[in-house]
Amino acid sequence: MLIEKLPKTKILINKKRLMKHFAELSQIGLNHTTGGIDRQLGSIGDKNARIWLKRIWKNEMHLNIYIDPIANLWGSYSRHLENKPIVFGSHHDSVADGGKYDGAMGVIIAMEVIQTIKENHIIMRHPLEIVSFTGEEPNSYLVSTLGSKVLCGRLNKDDIFKLSDKNTGQLLSKTIDLLGGNSQKIDSARLDKKLMTAFLEFHIEQGRCLFNQQQSVAAVTCITGIYREIITVIGEANHAGTTHLENRKDALCAAAQLCLDIENIMNECSHLAITVGKLKVKPGAASVIPGRVILTIDMRTVYPAEKEKALVLLQKIVTKISQVRGVRIERKINLDQLEMPMDSNVINAMADAFVKNEQPVIKMVSMAGHDAANMARLTKAGMLFAQSVDGYSHCPREYTAPKDIVIAAQVYLDTLLILDKELE
Amino acid sequence: MLIEKLPKTKILINKKRLMKHFAELSQIGLNHTTGGIDRQLGSIGDKNARIWLKRIWKNEMHLNIYIDPIANLWGSYSRHLENKPIVFGSHHDSVADGGKYDGAMGVIIAMEVIQTIKENHIIMRHPLEIVSFTGEEPNSYLVSTLGSKVLCGRLNKDDIFKLSDKNTGQLLSKTIDLLGGNSQKIDSARLDKKLMTAFLEFHIEQGRCLFNQQQSVAAVTCITGIYREIITVIGEANHAGTTHLENRKDALCAAAQLCLDIENIMNECSHLAITVGKLKVKPGAASVIPGRVILTIDMRTVYPAEKEKALVLLQKIVTKISQVRGVRIERKINLDQLEMPMDSNVINAMADAFVKNEQPVIKMVSMAGHDAANMARLTKAGMLFAQSVDGYSHCPREYTAPKDIVIAAQVYLDTLLILDKELE
Repeated sequence: MLIEKLPKTKILINKKRLMKHFAELSQIGLNHTTGGIDRQLGSIGDKNARIWLKRIWKNEMHLNIYIDPIANLWGSYSRHLENKPIVFGSHHDSVADGGKYDGAMGVIIAMEVIQTIKENHIIMRHPLEIVSFTGEEPNSYLVSTLGSKVLCGRLNKDDIFKLSDKNTGQLLSKTIDLLGGNSQKIDSARLDKKLMTAFLEFHIEQGRCLFNQQQSVAAVTCITGIYREIITVIGEANHAGTTHLENRKDALCAAAQLCLDIENIMNECSHLAITVGKLKVKPGAASVIPGRVILTIDMRTVYPAEKEKALVLLQKIVTKISQVRGVRIERKINLDQLEMPMDSNVINAMADAFVKNEQPVIKMVSMAGHDAANMARLTKAGMLFAQSVDGYSHCPREYTAPKDIVIAAQVYLDTLLILDKELE
Repeated sequence: MLIEKLPKTKILINKKRLMKHFAELSQIGLNHTTGGIDRQLGSIGDKNARIWLKRIWKNEMHLNIYIDPIANLWGSYSRHLENKPIVFGSHHDSVADGGKYDGAMGVIIAMEVIQTIKENHIIMRHPLEIVSFTGEEPNSYLVSTLGSKVLCGRLNKDDIFKLSDKNTGQLLSKTIDLLGGNSQKIDSARLDKKLMTAFLEFHIEQGRCLFNQQQSVAAVTCITGIYREIITVIGEANHAGTTHLENRKDALCAAAQLCLDIENIMNECSHLAITVGKLKVKPGAASVIPGRVILTIDMRTVYPAEKEKALVLLQKIVTKISQVRGVRIERKINLDQLEMPMDSNVINAMADAFVKNEQPVIKMVSMAGHDAANMARLTKAGMLFAQSVDGYSHCPREYTAPKDIVIAAQVYLDTLLILDKELE
């Protein structure tokens, strides 16, 4: 088997081309009022981004394009090689009024890396495949990392056919077909564990760690577990005027205490984020004491022991509030996605690439979920983060400096070259 | 002017007829699943209740029926007399899935009192007029005590024409016309201050005061002021995973603190009810720290000094939470309806009637709004309350024992006879 040495002259990515492609993609789904991006799953922006990607991949990069049954977009380079491919990419969809960088930059950098390899005539041991996943972001079908969940078997055809747009009622399967997928064959999109050599994803950090350290890039060691509950507080709806304080069973006041006590769990546990993001009040009239509140808890950590500690605290909080306020509190687990360590081979290759590019070797956990967590069930997966200015994400203010993007692209290329050399 | 003495033989209301009429009206809009009443403004139940009332008023009671432009239903007895009429009644509409007693019993008792006067051939100094008001309850047109607000000039034609059903979009003016009103002539429904001698309303208490004392009836001394604000808490929406506690500006946690501190105002002030009944979270996604919360405050008291004290406390709370949590809190007054004392002549007449019926003289304030508060702008107004079992109201569990209804009806009749005698 031929092993290509890393060339002594450093191969450089093309910054101008990278930023030009990014600028083009950033026009697609652009909300001209807010400056944000609207490329939610199935939207016009999603469709147009796919058209743009296919055009560049075909006409500029001469990749073989393939759309799998869940509508993930694949582009392969040198597929004829014997070894299993190294796959890399991210997603092009966004949340409503989201940022330009989240997902998109992971696709753009992957494209730039392939183009650089190609025009430098680097002979790779592994075929390379780029992917842009379907529906990574939370969306109106209430499913995220959709494309990679199907690839790794976390969702099958039956699951997909149960989902529909909560606003329009359109079936997810229809949306998938409209995006070029084939909903009838979704189960055949599932991949076998032996089909890839590795998976690599670039993403913006979406937090403030690198910004606070004023550093450009980090290797992800583990992707957070995400645990969610739906909690219902059942008090007693009653007249806001005639019901004395001592006779109230105000579900909203009980839920308010719950929110504050839940927030305080972050002081009690280390490296754990917990958030009440949704809260609905019933009946929801100005003159009626709330009888029922339904809220969600989102808890994230890479440390199972911290999660267990938080759940014990949560149970104590719930018991106490129920007793003190005479309300009933019902808990229902809605999601229990375990933390997913990234592969040490990929982390080490990335660390070598940091050194090569005169970057400090920074390792961190990801507190956001990513497609890479699903891909890690199938292959050696790794993620590269770049600095998010002020930590903003999922909003128009999301920003990563061009300097950091270029460093990330170069590290990404070098990581790929190292992995190509080192992995079987 | 002929002054009729109170007859020495006590005139008694007809319990059987009263309860029969109540049972009949309770079938109209009955929700057979919950046992509650659906007679919201403009609903089938509202329409059918009007048909039933008109039939009984015309065929059994032989009243002259008149529907005014805002669709209040009037029935007059002995209108030919020279003095200005004593008006009495309540409303037949309900909240969605409300109780059988709220409003309806005030109309039924008024009917029974007229019938008793009539069949006992009592010669009254004043004409008597019964009224069932349009749209007293909160409804989907977002206006309550609609009929009496128009009578006293708090709402005019222009105001009415701006309102529409928040669910269906139907104009309120159209609904009024469908109920037999005449929306084009709404301004002519406004009454002059000199047109009535007094206004009397029976209502269930909707609170626990009489229930706790195990007493039947009370005279209302004052109807609560209602003050409402819409408060917007502006934090910063951000990623639930990647945003550390120290970087969060969680609008929901700030609003939760606000809810608890607002609740505590009830411990600091006397005879004041304060409630957060509505609360909306934006963007409202499990994985996003809330960036904005909009909530309503409903504050009620008959004591202006307590209201002022509460508003000072509220401003302190808002300032402190803004500072501690780095959020912006915007306040907007939505309603500032002053407390409305009932007329002392009516209260005294009621007290005499209590004594006559061997009831303790109990006086209390009303913490709910009523049509009587609007009628008090036009004439000497008073209200009689009867015990609500367990204080339940606006729900299927609303209940007042027949024993207490009969006592109330008898007190009501005697109050009317006293007022007829005493007032000019």
